[in-house]
Parts: sequence; structure tokens; C-alpha cells
Amino acid sequence: MSAGWFRRRFLPGDPLPAPRTPGPRASPVPYRRPRFLRGSGSSPGAADASRRPDARPVRSPARGRSLPWNAGYAEIINAEKSEFNEDQAACGKLCIRRCEFGAEDDQEWLTLCPEEFLTGHYWALFDGHGGPAAAILAANTLHSCLRRQLEAVVEGLVATQPPMHLSGRCICPSDPQFVEEKGIRAEDLVIGALESAFQECDEVIGRELEASSQVGGCTALVAVSLQGKLYVANAGDSRAILVRRDEVRLLSSEFTPETERQRIQQLAFVYPELLAGEFTRLEFPRRLKGDDLGQKVLFRDHHMSGWSYKRVEKADLKYPLIHGQGRQARLLGTLAVSRGLGDHQLRVLDTNIQLKPFLLSIPQVTVLDVDQLELQEEDVIVMATDGLWDVLSNEQVAWLVRSFLPGNREDPHRFSELAKMLIHSTQRKDGPTGEGQVSYDDVSVFVIPLHSQGQGSSGH
Amino acid sequence: MSAGWFRRRFLPGDPLPAPRTPGPRASPVPYRRPRFLRGSGSSPGAADASRRPDARPVRSPARGRSLPWNAGYAEIINAEKSEFNEDQAACGKLCIRRCEFGAEDDQEWLTLCPEEFLTGHYWALFDGHGGPAAAILAANTLHSCLRRQLEAVVEGLVATQPPMHLSGRCICPSDPQFVEEKGIRAEDLVIGALESAFQECDEVIGRELEASSQVGGCTALVAVSLQGKLYVANAGDSRAILVRRDEVRLLSSEFTPETERQRIQQLAFVYPELLAGEFTRLEFPRRLKGDDLGQKVLFRDHHMSGWSYKRVEKADLKYPLIHGQGRQARLLGTLAVSRGLGDHQLRVLDTNIQLKPFLLSIPQVTVLDVDQLELQEEDVIVMATDGLWDVLSNEQVAWLVRSFLPGNREDPHRFSELAKMLIHSTQRKDGPTGEGQVSYDDVSVFVIPLHSQGQGSSGH
Repeated sequence: MSAGWFRRRFLPGDPLPAPRTPGPRASPVPYRRPRFLRGSGSSPGAADASRRPDARPVRSPARGRSLPWNAGYAEIINAEKSEFNEDQAACGKLCIRRCEFGAEDDQEWLTLCPEEFLTGHYWALFDGHGGPAAAILAANTLHSCLRRQLEAVVEGLVATQPPMHLSGRCICPSDPQFVEEKGIRAEDLVIGALESAFQECDEVIGRELEASSQVGGCTALVAVSLQGKLYVANAGDSRAILVRRDEVRLLSSEFTPETERQRIQQLAFVYPELLAGEFTRLEFPRRLKGDDLGQKVLFRDHHMSGWSYKRVEKADLKYPLIHGQGRQARLLGTLAVSRGLGDHQLRVLDTNIQLKPFLLSIPQVTVLDVDQLELQEEDVIVMATDGLWDVLSNEQVAWLVRSFLPGNREDPHRFSELAKMLIHSTQRKDGPTGEGQVSYDDVSVFVIPLHSQGQGSSGH
Repeated sequence: MSAGWFRRRFLPGDPLPAPRTPGPRASPVPYRRPRFLRGSGSSPGAADASRRPDARPVRSPARGRSLPWNAGYAEIINAEKSEFNEDQAACGKLCIRRCEFGAEDDQEWLTLCPEEFLTGHYWALFDGHGGPAAAILAANTLHSCLRRQLEAVVEGLVATQPPMHLSGRCICPSDPQFVEEKGIRAEDLVIGALESAFQECDEVIGRELEASSQVGGCTALVAVSLQGKLYVANAGDSRAILVRRDEVRLLSSEFTPETERQRIQQLAFVYPELLAGEFTRLEFPRRLKGDDLGQKVLFRDHHMSGWSYKRVEKADLKYPLIHGQGRQARLLGTLAVSRGLGDHQLRVLDTNIQLKPFLLSIPQVTVLDVDQLELQEEDVIVMATDGLWDVLSNEQVAWLVRSFLPGNREDPHRFSELAKMLIHSTQRKDGPTGEGQVSYDDVSVFVIPLHSQGQGSSGH
């Protein structure tokens, strides 16, 4: 990505890139559910669902079909918010080939790479908006992007420490020392590969949607196991947590207009034309109106964690760059998330103002050193889209996990049963936590057991 | 600060602001040491200092002079790095007047503000570079800026919850609810006042240095006690820690080109002209050279926490935006810190490239709820410039504090004695921690006892 790219891409005053030569118009991305649900049954959405007009089925993989690490999965479609379930899921084995060595690489280096393949596993959830297309493309594509990015650095991954040069040949005698001083480890290459893969997938989605004249975007939450570590990459408002007997640990953070306020305001500060004079970048407790003019009101700007007062001017009455509170917070009045894939064509209604410059496709990556945990049989990771977390807290989910697993040790499909039970808990006010709200959103859940670590992937 | 300010101030292609009408040339800022050192003695820099040619005195307040909360202080000048001690310190009582009410304010609101003054205390350290002037100006000015900023919001500070309008009058009936939902508390106003005060002080320093044709910048670390809370605001690489019998807690983070890499690279990404074609924003383990051309080397860009490989092009051979490792890391080859006050005129040697757009004058603020701590007699805060932390770890400082205080309960000046002892420990290889390095930098230390909380400020 060349310097000046940002300006060429997003600023109206600068010359636009030459339009892509239009190929034959591509056909729209066909709607589908995850492949591993083929042949699956479904159970009613809640214990008393048969009596309710809005009963929706909870779907999970067919008994007999097992997912990597014997993980469980379940999903439910939203309550008529959209025709399609805008969540998507994918999982599978990740086979990373060693790249072919060119003439430039010496033979000694080859011996550092003893295996022809590195294998890992991959689980991913995508929560779409503005249509199901972006999430479907992400589910079809992101794992390939990741495999490609990992293959491009595989020699660094299998070395004790990533070499300064991918050929393994030092140009300076002190090259290993520089890498050592920066503290660069193999896991930093996996993090870098995940960051690049999200970006590459975002570009693919942009091209494909443009070619098929479709729109939309999606969040992405990905767990990857590789070389004894588990990487959780998140862009959006899905969430992954580790649940153990004595511990609940967050493995991701949400990226919303509220959590990324300062980054978003900062961009509007250095490039005010991105708001086209239609929005104010300042935050106020509520939208201001004429009566507030001349008064001193609470506000904060891009550089502030705290609050202060300012005298209200006319420009402060514009619609706020970030508006609303909690689940209602919106970026430019339009989007509830500030990171994700797609949305290349998304503009504020009736304006030419683009959302994309404020959105990041880059995930935050958390590393869990699974080999260092003293794993117990019922340690699991729960990954779910926001439909689950809107109505259940981390502690409530942990309580449900700990209540369910001990009584279901014999069932080979117990992790999918647990995922279904978690979804059922989002559908009933009298849920097991006793104070439930009901989720009307799409909900998708993976439950990944850590103890077996792949032993279950060949089925039971 | 109007929209577009950033561009007008920093970008060469845009029209420059009209030059300030030159007033009578101001005289240079006179060099001085902190006022509270008047009449102080000094002790040799180390136990064996008399035998060493570089013996430097450790200075602390005269016995009989007490600082707010009976805090201790000591300082030592650097080992001939500069003629002057570039560190500065300030402390004192902070009297915040209630603003006069205008006709717009109703009488009911007055009863919410029962005291004519709010009083607090203030301790500050400034570590200068490029000459002592900026640090002296900051020591002379920042507390006044802070008082002014706090006075501007004092009605909000003394209310149960800051009102939406500074007049206290709701324009919407639901105004209090909006403030409640945002979770805005009185302490957010103090944080906002600290953020604004740093910015205001930075502007004052810029004007004063320009008027007297001087240059330079400084870091700023400030502790403020107010209404039972202690606020620590930091811009730069000084540090404050809380030391208790069973706990060592960081109260600040350092801001250096390394810790703020992504923010700095991001700015160079959206405004490449800030580098004038002379620097590369990419990070490599070492500076690249001709032999690296065409090779794939480790790198990371603004959006990456991890590392990846890229094929080296000619542009990658430019000097890196951030170069060097640890204490040697420099922004644009010039500065070791990425936040602070001043440096308005600072440019990269022999170029027109400004440092200021990459520097932030905004502090990060940590709040310690002192009233909620179960304070013990020897709980203290240690604030010091980087000269101390370069050679002593937090744990070593905590060990020294815990070793010193119990044996010195009777000495009313024990906290200054402790500060002196900490500085002595930076001057001897055989220091009490047994593995000491020697600091050749300026070192300044405040030790603030929390238990007495002002009872000692009238002296013993």
C-alpha cells in the first residue's frame, strides 16, 4: 500500500484511481448456511416455543458429523429482522505448505523446516449487516487468505526465532541480535499473518461485491490453533471467552463507535473533509438543539479521556460523528461496529459521506498459550456473535457451561448440545439465569473444548 | 481549535497562519532551581563521592521547610551532559475559586456549592531537553493553567454529578439521565481539566519561547490531590508508582516512540508529506542498506501488532520514522519521547521536517481513590524522572522504600531523606540492590506520603 493511498482512496479533491475495467458482471453471492450444517436437524427455539408464533429453529451439526477438536456449534436466525440469517460460520483444518525454495536459499536453511506441512485448526464467526453477502464471502475466503499469509512466512514460523531475512541468510552478522532485541517471536508472525489476512479478505470482499453489484459488511471473530497456541483475532462486536473451573478470561475486546471513539474523532480532526460539513466530531451527552446555543455544555474531543464544558456554537448542533449510547451507538448515524470486513460502498443516507475511512479491517489478536495452561477436562472457549452477549453476561455463560458439562460427560456431541443450550437461554425470559432478556438477533455459538485438542476431530 | 487546524499548522502546501506581530523581544527565561530548594544544603552524590572527580551534590529542601503533605524531594544534576540541570520541579497548594455567577444562574444552584474554595495539592516534575527553558516555563506555568481550568468547571466538580449545562439548568427534562447514561462523574472533569491544562501550558511555552528566541521541550508528570482522590497525569517518560507494604502499583505509563509506534506511524500514513520523502514510516529490526535490496525482511506497518516479511524496495532504505531500540529509540532520529510540552520549533537537523505534529501534549491520567485505600503509615507515592527508572526497577525502589521507612519513623524529614537515598542508589555500582547501574542523567524524585494527607503540610 503506497504512501498517499489513504488520500487517493477517500478524499474527493484528489484524483480518483482509474476505474477497473469492468469484466463480465458476476452473479450475486448465493445465500447459504455453513457447510457443516448439511443434513442437520433443528430443535425448537425454546422449551415453550411451540406455543409461540415466532418460534424459530435452533440448528446444530448432524449427530455423527464432528468439527475440529470435537467443537460444538449452534445457531438461531433473528426474529424477522431480516429474511436471511446474516451470521455465518466456518471451521476446518488449516494445512500450511512449505514454500518452494528458490535458488537464493541455501541448503542449510532447509534443515530448519523438518515437516512438509504445518497443520492447525480454524473456527470463525461472521456477523453480517446490510445483507448476507459479505459474511458469506468472508466465510468462503478468510481461511484461504490466512493459509496464504502463513505459507508466505512459514520458514520464520518453524525457526527458533524468525530470521531477519526470509532466506535465513544474515546480511549483517548482527542480524539475529537485532531480531532478539526487538523481541520478535514466531507468534508475532502468526499475529502479522492474521492482520494481513483480514486486510486481504477485506479487499477480496470489496472486489467481489462491486463485481456483483452487492453491498454489505460483516464482523469477524476467528480462533486459530497452531503450534500449541490459540490465536483469537477479532474485528467487530462478537466475543470469545475462556471458561475454566476457576476462571473466566476475555479473549477479545469489542470494537464499536464507543470503544474506538478517540481513534475515530482523531481521523475526523486531521481530515475534517471526511465529514463534509454535515457532522460534528465532538461528543456531547445528547444531541444539541437550538435552545442549547450559547450555553456551556459537557463535551469531549478526540484528545480527551475526561470531560469538559464548552459554549455551544452553531456548528455543534450538527449531527454527531458518534451518536447514541451502548447498543444504540452509531458511527455517522449508520453503523454499530467500527471494525469489520466489507462496507466499501457504504455511505451515509442521502449523502456522499463514506463510512469506510473510519472502519478498520484490522483485528486485535490475543494469544493463549494452551501448552502452558494446566488444562482440565471441561475447559472450553465460547465464541459467539453479539446476539448472545447482548442478553447473557460472561459470568452467566460460564455458569451455564459449568452447570451443563459435568452431567453430560458421555455424550460425544455434548459441546453442540451446550451451544444449543446457550442459544435456548437467549430465547426465554425465565432462562436458567433467572433474569433473562430475550435476543431477537441472529445468534451463533462455537464451543471449543481445549482438553482433547484435536483428538476428537476424527469423530467418536 | 477549529477543524482544519492540523493541516494549516503543519502542512507546507497550505496557507500559513499570519505571523504574530512581533512585540518587544522578550528576555530569555532565566535559569533557576525549584523555589522550595532555597536555603537548602546538599550532600555528596555517593558515599565514596569525595574520591571521584565527577562527584555531584544531591540537593533537597532545607530542614524546617516542609512541602505539601510533608512530601520529600531530592535531585542531582547530570554528569556533565549539560551545563544546567534540565529537570525542574514544582509543588504547592491549589486554591480553586468558585466562579462568579452571572445573571443566567439561578439561586438554587448556589446552594450546591457550599465552600468558597476547593483546595488541593500539586506536585510536578519536568524533564527538559534542548535546554532548560521549557521545563522552567512549565514549572512556572502549569499549575496556573490547571487552576484556571478547574475554576472553569468548579460547579460541576462540587455537584453530585456534573450537570449537562454549567448553569445547572436543564434544557431537556432528561438531561440528567443523558449524563447518567454516559457515566460522567466529577472525576472526569478533573481529568478533562488536566488534559486541557497541559494543552494550554504547551501553547504558553510555544509563545514564550518564540518571543525570547529560545527552544526546547520537556516531559511533565503531575500529581494532584483533590476531593479525596489523587490524579496522576503523565506526558513523557517520567514515572509514578504507589508503594505499599504488599503492593507496587504503576500510576503512569511512559510515552516514547516505541510505546506510541502505531499512533506515530498512523499519522505518517494519512499524511505522508510530514516525512518530506526523507523517512520511511515502516519499522524494520535494523536500518536497511543496499545489500538488503530485493530480500524479504521482517517489518511492520502502522496497522500491525505482529510482524511480517516484505521484499525490500529502494524507499525502504530511507531513515526510519522511529529508529533504535529501548533507551536509544528516537522519533525522526531526534527525540526520545513522544509526549511532552514545547518543541514547537524543533525540526530534524538540516531539514524542514517538524517534530511537533508527531508529539502530543496530552497526558494520560490515572485516578487513585485514596479515600478507598486502607492506608497504612508507610504507603507512599514515588514520582521520578527517567534518570531514576533507567537504573532502578519498580521493585528495587519499593524494596528501598520498605527498607528505609521503618527505621526512620521519628525524623520529620524522612521522606526527603528517602528521596536522597533513592538518588544515592542511582550513583553507585555497589548500591543496596547489589546490581546497580550508575545514572549519568539528571534525576529528580518526589516521595509523597499518603497517610498524613496534608496534616504534615504545616510543618513539624
